[in-house]
Amino acid sequence: MENKNYIYLDNASSTKTDDRVIDEMMPYLKDFYGNPSSVHQAGADAREGLEKARNRVAILINSSPEEIYFTSCGTESNNFALNGIMEANSSKGNHIITSSIEHLSILNPLKELKKKGFEVTIVPVDNKGFVFSEEIKKAIRPDTVLISIMHANNEIGTIQKIKEISDIAKTAGIIMHSDGVATAGIIPLSVNELGVDALSFSSQQMYGPKGGAALYIRKGVRIKPLILGGVQERGRRAGTENIPAIVGFGKACEIAKLEMEKNSHMLIKLRNRLIKGIQDNIKEITLNGPTESRLPGNVHISFEYIEGESIVLFLNMQGITVATGSSCASQALKVSHVCTSIGLGQATAQGSILFSIGKYNTEADIDKVIDVLPPIIDKLRKMSPLYKG
Amino acid sequence: MENKNYIYLDNASSTKTDDRVIDEMMPYLKDFYGNPSSVHQAGADAREGLEKARNRVAILINSSPEEIYFTSCGTESNNFALNGIMEANSSKGNHIITSSIEHLSILNPLKELKKKGFEVTIVPVDNKGFVFSEEIKKAIRPDTVLISIMHANNEIGTIQKIKEISDIAKTAGIIMHSDGVATAGIIPLSVNELGVDALSFSSQQMYGPKGGAALYIRKGVRIKPLILGGVQERGRRAGTENIPAIVGFGKACEIAKLEMEKNSHMLIKLRNRLIKGIQDNIKEITLNGPTESRLPGNVHISFEYIEGESIVLFLNMQGITVATGSSCASQALKVSHVCTSIGLGQATAQGSILFSIGKYNTEADIDKVIDVLPPIIDKLRKMSPLYKG
Repeated sequence: MENKNYIYLDNASSTKTDDRVIDEMMPYLKDFYGNPSSVHQAGADAREGLEKARNRVAILINSSPEEIYFTSCGTESNNFALNGIMEANSSKGNHIITSSIEHLSILNPLKELKKKGFEVTIVPVDNKGFVFSEEIKKAIRPDTVLISIMHANNEIGTIQKIKEISDIAKTAGIIMHSDGVATAGIIPLSVNELGVDALSFSSQQMYGPKGGAALYIRKGVRIKPLILGGVQERGRRAGTENIPAIVGFGKACEIAKLEMEKNSHMLIKLRNRLIKGIQDNIKEITLNGPTESRLPGNVHISFEYIEGESIVLFLNMQGITVATGSSCASQALKVSHVCTSIGLGQATAQGSILFSIGKYNTEADIDKVIDVLPPIIDKLRKMSPLYKG
Repeated sequence: MENKNYIYLDNASSTKTDDRVIDEMMPYLKDFYGNPSSVHQAGADAREGLEKARNRVAILINSSPEEIYFTSCGTESNNFALNGIMEANSSKGNHIITSSIEHLSILNPLKELKKKGFEVTIVPVDNKGFVFSEEIKKAIRPDTVLISIMHANNEIGTIQKIKEISDIAKTAGIIMHSDGVATAGIIPLSVNELGVDALSFSSQQMYGPKGGAALYIRKGVRIKPLILGGVQERGRRAGTENIPAIVGFGKACEIAKLEMEKNSHMLIKLRNRLIKGIQDNIKEITLNGPTESRLPGNVHISFEYIEGESIVLFLNMQGITVATGSSCASQALKVSHVCTSIGLGQATAQGSILFSIGKYNTEADIDKVIDVLPPIIDKLRKMSPLYKG
């Protein structure tokens, strides 16, 4: 097998691992295979990699290393945060507030928590995907323990005003969690500036390997483990740490911190070029999400009269890799709950495409899309019974 | 940093990843970084690796690929099995039977399940670590849903008569789970011959990478997910699959299957050489665990009058890497529950060392241990207030 050299525009789903990250991982994959919980030298070597990575990860989000708990993926971090905080703080209440456009790794565990007797208020968002702070305030009850609002939406790119929400939480003595999978390593993120008590984030969205992720938990916040067994991660996440992935995650955080500004500038330029190129060449489209406060690499567009799935497949035949939305839901082939939450009709939602641009993309990639997309849309619309031409 | 070339005798804790496994992983680390849930080519490439690995993993344990669910580690697999089976089958009852020498990733989740109202019977073992089948029979109640007994003990090496226990379970209509982390890839293991309905196993114990593990669940057995979100692993384990680790796990399973007989023969030879060498040269020691039905690479010995921790550190200074028991418990520096379960006194238990031999060890490694260990034991005993020498 050889690298097919896709024009890869699905970076929200997973990113190419940076070669410098892989170089950093290799000694831990090959030679430092000890279990970091062991007291001997092989254990110490692995532990050294683990703690160096913890430090780098902490620096990225401006926390202390002792507040970082490694998990296996962003989804696990979200499950851990919700279940762990609610169970550990059940004496304070059993009510959670979240939004309608959270990732499924928030919404599905909450469904499960509801079955167990917890109560959940899901606040709506406006047509750009912003949570109304007033709705959060209204939703607060004496038994509210946790507010969980994602930092930015992975599909439509909306960056929330988390500080505004965390201030409300703080005033009311409520724990504030944020899903930072779409933002950590991509835009500046300081847990102190955001005022969050817990933050989920992941390596594979920031040019690190799969299998590396973390939950930041502010010192003093009570949380129960999701996975029990040995005393790894100071008793909060059992199971042998995936050292090569964690080491890679650490390096990815270090690189992200150093190169964020440069990459962000470039991504915004490519994003705006793609948006303009599509708007100039294709009619009856909608750019979803906001124009300000938008993830730098995010372009989410609804094409009327056709199905997103067909666009994905036609672009794929041209070697261009895009998505209909969250890959976590793609196998279900359902309309994204994010699209319906911002008020898109069923038909419009179904014609949505997420182009998520990453640091390895070039102007040439974008121009290729602008070149091949209009005839594809034209062709698909002519095949559509909905299209009157 | 360079490989320190330890004489590595802590293979129960974690093994060196086979170079052939790393070679197989590399394309998935570097080039096939797509999300396997995506419908485009990059997703398909990742999915191809995922399903090829699932097939290889299934072949190792003689299951069908559809019965394999990938997780992040053996600990997660055990948590998933216990929580998932008990919650999904709560209409049948709420009682679980297990043994006193299970891994902490069984015993600690069970403590948590007890707090949630489930009832747990922990059956004792004999002084070699064997579960009494009669005790299992006695423990069965009308509301017993699950029996979970490990295939082999990771510390003292006892290989249980799982078939005998699964027959009892089957007759009583009870679901049978086994923790196969210490055996899968090391000794022959067929889920059908063992008669188990669920089996946990892991990559890092069989010369595969960390981050790869699975839970086998027999078709028709009901289980609830531990980690919720997207529809990965047919809805039973959310979160992007760690493709490089899973691909490595698959290759490790393939190699293990092919080379098991050869390796096992060699391990038994080295094991017996080490046991004899220690018995011939050091007095007042006890070999724990059975002589028959013992893991091929397992040597677990109690040295009277001294602390295992000191032996680990002194051997470490000679470049030899051993453990006091399970690395998952080592940071707690407590006496192993396995040692106390087989009747070792506190002092004897504390003087225990686990030498776990792996396929990369040689006769020279073993002879080095036999050479350096007696003077270390002698020195430590002379320093011990307990030793009357």
